[in-house]
Amino acid sequence: MSKKLTSRTEDYSKWYNELVVKADLAENSAVRGCMVIKPYGYAIWEKMQAELDRMFKETGHQNAYFPLFVPKSLFEAEEKNAEGFAKECAIVTHYRLQADPDKPGKLRVDPEAKLEEELIVRPTSEAIIWNTYRNWIQSYRDLPILINQWANVVRWEMRTRLFLRTAEFLWQEGHTAHETKAEAMAEAKLMNNVYATFAENFMAMPVIQGVKTESERFAGAEETFCIEALMQDGKALQAGTSHFLGQNFAKAFDVKFANKEGKQDYVWATSWGVSTRLMGALIMTHSDDFGLVLPPSLAPNQVVIVPIYKNEEDFEAISEIANKIASELKVKGISVKYDSRDTQRPGAKFAQHELQGVPLRIAIGPKDLENGTVEIARRDILTKEIVSLDNLTATVENLLIEMQKGLFDKALTFRDDHITEVNSFEEFKSVIENKGGFISAHWDGTKETEDKIKELTKATIRCIPLEINQEEGVCVFTGKPSKHRVLFAKAY
Amino acid sequence: MSKKLTSRTEDYSKWYNELVVKADLAENSAVRGCMVIKPYGYAIWEKMQAELDRMFKETGHQNAYFPLFVPKSLFEAEEKNAEGFAKECAIVTHYRLQADPDKPGKLRVDPEAKLEEELIVRPTSEAIIWNTYRNWIQSYRDLPILINQWANVVRWEMRTRLFLRTAEFLWQEGHTAHETKAEAMAEAKLMNNVYATFAENFMAMPVIQGVKTESERFAGAEETFCIEALMQDGKALQAGTSHFLGQNFAKAFDVKFANKEGKQDYVWATSWGVSTRLMGALIMTHSDDFGLVLPPSLAPNQVVIVPIYKNEEDFEAISEIANKIASELKVKGISVKYDSRDTQRPGAKFAQHELQGVPLRIAIGPKDLENGTVEIARRDILTKEIVSLDNLTATVENLLIEMQKGLFDKALTFRDDHITEVNSFEEFKSVIENKGGFISAHWDGTKETEDKIKELTKATIRCIPLEINQEEGVCVFTGKPSKHRVLFAKAY
Repeated sequence: MSKKLTSRTEDYSKWYNELVVKADLAENSAVRGCMVIKPYGYAIWEKMQAELDRMFKETGHQNAYFPLFVPKSLFEAEEKNAEGFAKECAIVTHYRLQADPDKPGKLRVDPEAKLEEELIVRPTSEAIIWNTYRNWIQSYRDLPILINQWANVVRWEMRTRLFLRTAEFLWQEGHTAHETKAEAMAEAKLMNNVYATFAENFMAMPVIQGVKTESERFAGAEETFCIEALMQDGKALQAGTSHFLGQNFAKAFDVKFANKEGKQDYVWATSWGVSTRLMGALIMTHSDDFGLVLPPSLAPNQVVIVPIYKNEEDFEAISEIANKIASELKVKGISVKYDSRDTQRPGAKFAQHELQGVPLRIAIGPKDLENGTVEIARRDILTKEIVSLDNLTATVENLLIEMQKGLFDKALTFRDDHITEVNSFEEFKSVIENKGGFISAHWDGTKETEDKIKELTKATIRCIPLEINQEEGVCVFTGKPSKHRVLFAKAY
Repeated sequence: MSKKLTSRTEDYSKWYNELVVKADLAENSAVRGCMVIKPYGYAIWEKMQAELDRMFKETGHQNAYFPLFVPKSLFEAEEKNAEGFAKECAIVTHYRLQADPDKPGKLRVDPEAKLEEELIVRPTSEAIIWNTYRNWIQSYRDLPILINQWANVVRWEMRTRLFLRTAEFLWQEGHTAHETKAEAMAEAKLMNNVYATFAENFMAMPVIQGVKTESERFAGAEETFCIEALMQDGKALQAGTSHFLGQNFAKAFDVKFANKEGKQDYVWATSWGVSTRLMGALIMTHSDDFGLVLPPSLAPNQVVIVPIYKNEEDFEAISEIANKIASELKVKGISVKYDSRDTQRPGAKFAQHELQGVPLRIAIGPKDLENGTVEIARRDILTKEIVSLDNLTATVENLLIEMQKGLFDKALTFRDDHITEVNSFEEFKSVIENKGGFISAHWDGTKETEDKIKELTKATIRCIPLEINQEEGVCVFTGKPSKHRVLFAKAY
């Protein structure tokens, strides 16, 4: 298999699929729509998890774990939520296999081992969790409950793509319970803000915070906050959502508490989640035709050192320097790998590290031994430079900081260049077809108009931004009055 | 609900169940056999995970993630493994619900949405993983593969108990692929040793390393290494297993490689796992009639500070000292919580922290303010002591080290006192019935004898210890010759 990728301009979708597989991030499995996350891909996900987990704990949340299965009677209790997920859920109906009497050596489902009640493999855990919270909450003293769970969920998607849309995916789901509406609303906003901070500071991916329109809301939510990012092909990607659930789940599962006045009231809820979809967003935000580009904050190896030598003597001398550099970088908290494999030539190593997005590559050859130098190659802008061994640690530290910032700035410039204000539907269609990106336009606030625009252009309202300018205008489609613009885009 | 537990002597099993629930570790869920792991229990599991994960990575392993589902045709490919798990697996047969035409507002399985091939919810992942490895391995250069996965698995157990035996549980499963038999065997032993080190150094739980007899082996393994621990009721608990799988899975999934001589050969395999069952082992090794006892290494809060005050002025003065102590302890890497809740009296806090096994409790009252002292209570031996604020950090550090060692030593003494050498079957039955623990006895090496002893006494061969004395003898049951003793016990 050639290492060369299809270029983004040639076929963006093919480029993405090839990159994911060739950079050893993930691959399709024998199970329809389910992926295998390979070690290198998983290492990036682990770095994301660690940082998010730290941020959740800093904001007062604790982890817990709830069952994989949801009995059908609980699944259907919150009607809108059930309706939203019923069409795409995996259902366990039996609990035993037996020898197939017709096919020696094969097994079949034991017809005697039918479950009394079907179990739904969780597509999301509100139902099972709120059924549990009922027993945990009696009084306002038991509130708030601030819990997060790291888990796998299953949504039986028909068209799947590695990381972006898979039948099983990994995610975290926060589920919180509160005394008051205001407190729950503040929590939903807080966690959306945590996601935005994570996306921008760690993924180097600029996002727009906003709220969803009613038709794009999470099934069972009263308000869905979201972070929306823009990919290099001009399509938007919903990278995280945080839901204000009102009292819907409390009512469906009869979760009441005695408030400070001693009266019974339903509990207020939020839920919020990000998933391995973030891997897709990360890849599509920064990568290029040579492969993955990783922000240093999320790179499993921030630096790789490659020795270039013709004889054993040089190799030993280079290794001594490489190990010294590596240990000095490690002291500063920089992850570094000395790639001393003798099964690969330097060129093959360079190609692999480029494909896998290692931020900095240090090469050391015989000339460097003489001159007290190394060659540093930057993955982001693909430059090489000979630098002195003196102060190398500081050089590397500064470069990594510069690269993290540079990637964000580049993505931000691209994103901002792709927010187009339009004032007519002709212009709307032209921008969607030719330029892509976000379209900032007036909308009359009705579902009918939203649906019609989607039908005609495939663009949906990604969000009503939280930072909004009040501005009198008219709907780009119907001409009816509107008080502010919203953001449309084609989306993943 | 009273906080007082049933005593261990009164009803050990009831004591365990009450402790797990009242200490907020876990509870049963609405799904038969599945548990909810509550935040406090999950925090302990997270500490276990972090340490194990570090040890796996130090021994060269990487994490990855494979699908939750195993198509039936893959599940049945390795016959012994399939046979071993067929009777207890959850099976997904459909992928959609629809409105139930007979019951308004209810859902039913959509009969049109039947899967072409049933999916088994993984009870273990050898099948799906070895089916994947086939594409990853062509030559010896691709070996070894050293992968671990943190995941949930499902085994449809009929009699379940929180942590010890649940239909769904959390675990890690290592799956490695090797060039040679010797290398795979060494890996299986190495990982069993990692488990033993973890159990002893972190859980303060002494274990015996051994191999399983054929009838107790993992389905599909050629050799199963294990660590066996002894609980306070004299029953053994298998705390971790590491399997040498030979070429069984490679043959079932046709995983061959070109060896160094250029010939095709089947790959050698291991798998190894520990699960949330370790939580049960941890609880039953150290805890007492007052509740959970935790080794400091795994305690979410190693120290809790409780203020005792009558007026706001004292509270402020105490809080100042408490916060100072807390920050000094944190600098030393000690986890500490200042329990300044005003909704609970000190007595209630003491009871809660005792029940939840916080290793050290520091109480500060008005007298302490005058004298420059605090009261330190040890959870392990339930002693209290007034100590000076001077050098308090060092005092705490030393106590935690002493407690970690003390808990291990106590458990070791108990374990060693409960290994009884017996030389007749009468003696065997008497020890099993009256004393419990491990019985060290000669066995003739046959399955028939093993089965018969199990039938008569409920004791099974827990393991053939790795550290074994060659000793001529005769089987305790049949009188046939035997070359060494093995360990029997009743087990969880």
